Amino acid sequence: MKTKLFTIILCCFLTFNYAQEDETVLRTLYTASLTDGMSYEWLDHLSNEIGGRLSGSKNAELAVQYTKAELEKLGLDKVWLQPVMVPKWERGEKEKAFFEVAGFVNEVNICALGGSVATPKDGISSEVVEVQNFEELAALGKENIEGKIVFYNRPMQADLISTFNAYGGCVNQRYAGAMEAGKYGAVGVIVRSMTLRKDDLPHTGSMSYGDLPVNQRIPSAAISTNDADLLSKALKKNKGIQFYFKQSCQQFEDVLSYNVIGEITGSKFPNEYIIVGGHLDSWDLGDGAHDDGAGVVQSMDVLRLLKKSGITPKRTIRVVLFMNEENGLRGATEYAKVAKEKNENHIFALESDAGGFTPRGFSFAANETNFNQVLGWKALFKPYLIHYFELGGSGADVGPLKSETNVLAGLRPDSQRYFDHHHAANDTFEHVNKRELELGAATMVSLVYLFDKYGVNPITNHRKIKE
Amino acid sequence: MKTKLFTIILCCFLTFNYAQEDETVLRTLYTASLTDGMSYEWLDHLSNEIGGRLSGSKNAELAVQYTKAELEKLGLDKVWLQPVMVPKWERGEKEKAFFEVAGFVNEVNICALGGSVATPKDGISSEVVEVQNFEELAALGKENIEGKIVFYNRPMQADLISTFNAYGGCVNQRYAGAMEAGKYGAVGVIVRSMTLRKDDLPHTGSMSYGDLPVNQRIPSAAISTNDADLLSKALKKNKGIQFYFKQSCQQFEDVLSYNVIGEITGSKFPNEYIIVGGHLDSWDLGDGAHDDGAGVVQSMDVLRLLKKSGITPKRTIRVVLFMNEENGLRGATEYAKVAKEKNENHIFALESDAGGFTPRGFSFAANETNFNQVLGWKALFKPYLIHYFELGGSGADVGPLKSETNVLAGLRPDSQRYFDHHHAANDTFEHVNKRELELGAATMVSLVYLFDKYGVNPITNHRKIKE
Repeated sequence: MKTKLFTIILCCFLTFNYAQEDETVLRTLYTASLTDGMSYEWLDHLSNEIGGRLSGSKNAELAVQYTKAELEKLGLDKVWLQPVMVPKWERGEKEKAFFEVAGFVNEVNICALGGSVATPKDGISSEVVEVQNFEELAALGKENIEGKIVFYNRPMQADLISTFNAYGGCVNQRYAGAMEAGKYGAVGVIVRSMTLRKDDLPHTGSMSYGDLPVNQRIPSAAISTNDADLLSKALKKNKGIQFYFKQSCQQFEDVLSYNVIGEITGSKFPNEYIIVGGHLDSWDLGDGAHDDGAGVVQSMDVLRLLKKSGITPKRTIRVVLFMNEENGLRGATEYAKVAKEKNENHIFALESDAGGFTPRGFSFAANETNFNQVLGWKALFKPYLIHYFELGGSGADVGPLKSETNVLAGLRPDSQRYFDHHHAANDTFEHVNKRELELGAATMVSLVYLFDKYGVNPITNHRKIKE
Repeated sequence: MKTKLFTIILCCFLTFNYAQEDETVLRTLYTASLTDGMSYEWLDHLSNEIGGRLSGSKNAELAVQYTKAELEKLGLDKVWLQPVMVPKWERGEKEKAFFEVAGFVNEVNICALGGSVATPKDGISSEVVEVQNFEELAALGKENIEGKIVFYNRPMQADLISTFNAYGGCVNQRYAGAMEAGKYGAVGVIVRSMTLRKDDLPHTGSMSYGDLPVNQRIPSAAISTNDADLLSKALKKNKGIQFYFKQSCQQFEDVLSYNVIGEITGSKFPNEYIIVGGHLDSWDLGDGAHDDGAGVVQSMDVLRLLKKSGITPKRTIRVVLFMNEENGLRGATEYAKVAKEKNENHIFALESDAGGFTPRGFSFAANETNFNQVLGWKALFKPYLIHYFELGGSGADVGPLKSETNVLAGLRPDSQRYFDHHHAANDTFEHVNKRELELGAATMVSLVYLFDKYGVNPITNHRKIKE
């Protein structure tokens, strides 16, 4: 009985001390990020010196070289490039579009969707049919669609609090709109831009033709929300409006590119891997500062902040800058494939790919035991106004690493402004706030520190306690 | 025993039903704000059609007229103006400042602090002495300060998570810097702008000479952070740098202005008052969109959203648009004075004066019973990512209404970007995000709805249950 009591007291004492140590470490990490972070400086270079980094482009190559060189300056144990073949699609000349009402030409702002085919050289002009969804399209059928341009105009739902949910409710129009409309003989597709803002900027993004035969692949473009509203209004008042658009985008052969990886080898459990990452590629219209320059530089700073704060990780901590998240996910697929081949035990993978805004918390993919462990850490984050610890998705790039026993997580920044910039020309450095970016990096490194210290499951913890 | 059990079951049932009704009402209010709010449109007018609204200015008068007219359109029970005499200070011509190093003139960006006296017509030029705080100033003493310009350069602390705390740690330099330096015979004061950002914008704000005799009142200006760093660096390398500045600001006689008030009279307890407000005046450099146009339009929309959602308040709900928060607090003082004279029982007062950013929660001034009641509502706000319910300050304008039994609260939006714009030329409409603003209004009206429904203390609740 005495022994039991002693054990309880000892446990309480140890728990208290552990918690106190963790509080101190988190304070150190947040201070380091806010007063001596590198994320903002790196993002400045990535955005302003390099710019948009579409997979297979010269800029993507420059970004690979730059981030590798910067990681090499950090004194990590290893830095390397992981080869991966990626798609190469180019936008070509600036797109052009207009529609005429009563002899008045309304020029509208469009951009080709990533992966779309071009229009014929002189563009296409045809009657335009507005639909809200695929059900309406099917109801109209071939007799009403053939030879026409389909205009998908379902807006993002403004009453949803998470703008990602609003995006999720609309993005099938962009991704599969051409595939669906092509089946009914449409000659082109115009999609309302995926943003809650009313402005003149078209937002690009990936689309797919699925298994559609080449001769049924029709050009597909996004139109700005202001112009979508203008067109919709005109269609309500006028019959047979002709819409013209021209785009000269092109798909090339796949080219060689790379994931950029850096590593601090674990001091006690080098075969347990914790990774943190974002994607190095971006769309081409802006400079990809939020999507996903922010995630890249925050992930890089996680390793730097650990080193800077004198923390010697027990487990191997890797930063992985994934190539080709936007239009192929080839980097993520390759990383997971190699990890599996090498039988690398990835116990925790954290992704930042939701913009460089004030962090609110994390979304986790984890079993109950591991999630409960995570919930036990939540109070540590309260001083930093990090409240959101919920089960849900993690991220596209870390997704392929999921196992029964590991934990995946995605940083969840405030989402209100994300789709104002997402895949558009205004996804640029000046729209990233330095402190918001740095708070994200601090929040990420804090969680990485805790996973490194405590591991992810009872077996791991047991081993830790025995040390 | 049976009766007791029945009571418990009934209570559980009622609690459940109450909670469910509240969930539904909050969902309705958030949806109304996000899909059919007026706050953004009103802010557009206030910022872009009227502009900066310094107390006693023509613009402040226009803002009074505009908001009164808009409130009158809402079908409230009463709308009126409450007269109040306010200070009138004018900036005059654009300020000018430079310092010379080795024959090279460095022009720097300054602005007069609100309430400062002018320099002589041709400006002043003198040696400049940098200090971090009043202790350093005192240590230097009259022999090192007399005839010189004092440069206060203590930066806001970047490692604090709340930027308001960082501001609180520095603002005495701005407010009392001239008063302190004047005691030692300084001829002018330059203060590092109160922002965490490094940029070229000077940030104005209120200052006071206290009881200092008129002949000891010295001109006081803010300098941009970039220029503060430049000057500080130059001072470290060079002795006897001369600093020149010129400003032509002027204090006039007090003028008549107004608080703008609108009211929905309570259907059951008309003598219990709930108020929601922000301040109508702003500084003059920007258009006062965040400080505090946002709070004004959100408060106006609280009453509109209640009416629009078909809610008939039991208690009297007032919107109060306070005049002269920035440099006098005369509107708040007058409102509280009149409320006291009329013996109006203000059970709850909510202020929004921390920018139109994503709301994170509220800070409350309340006794334990009332705060516990509020904590019981916290879960209702979880779907809207409102997590912050803490005891603390409320706001400058509602502060004078505090009593033992009532509750005061301040909306707490995300604070990271606030001081990027605070009192500077870039506090403008385009830096307010529509959804962030609307979420703030929705969060405010939700809390007002709950206080109206449940009241603030056991006596009130008891009365409610007996109805």
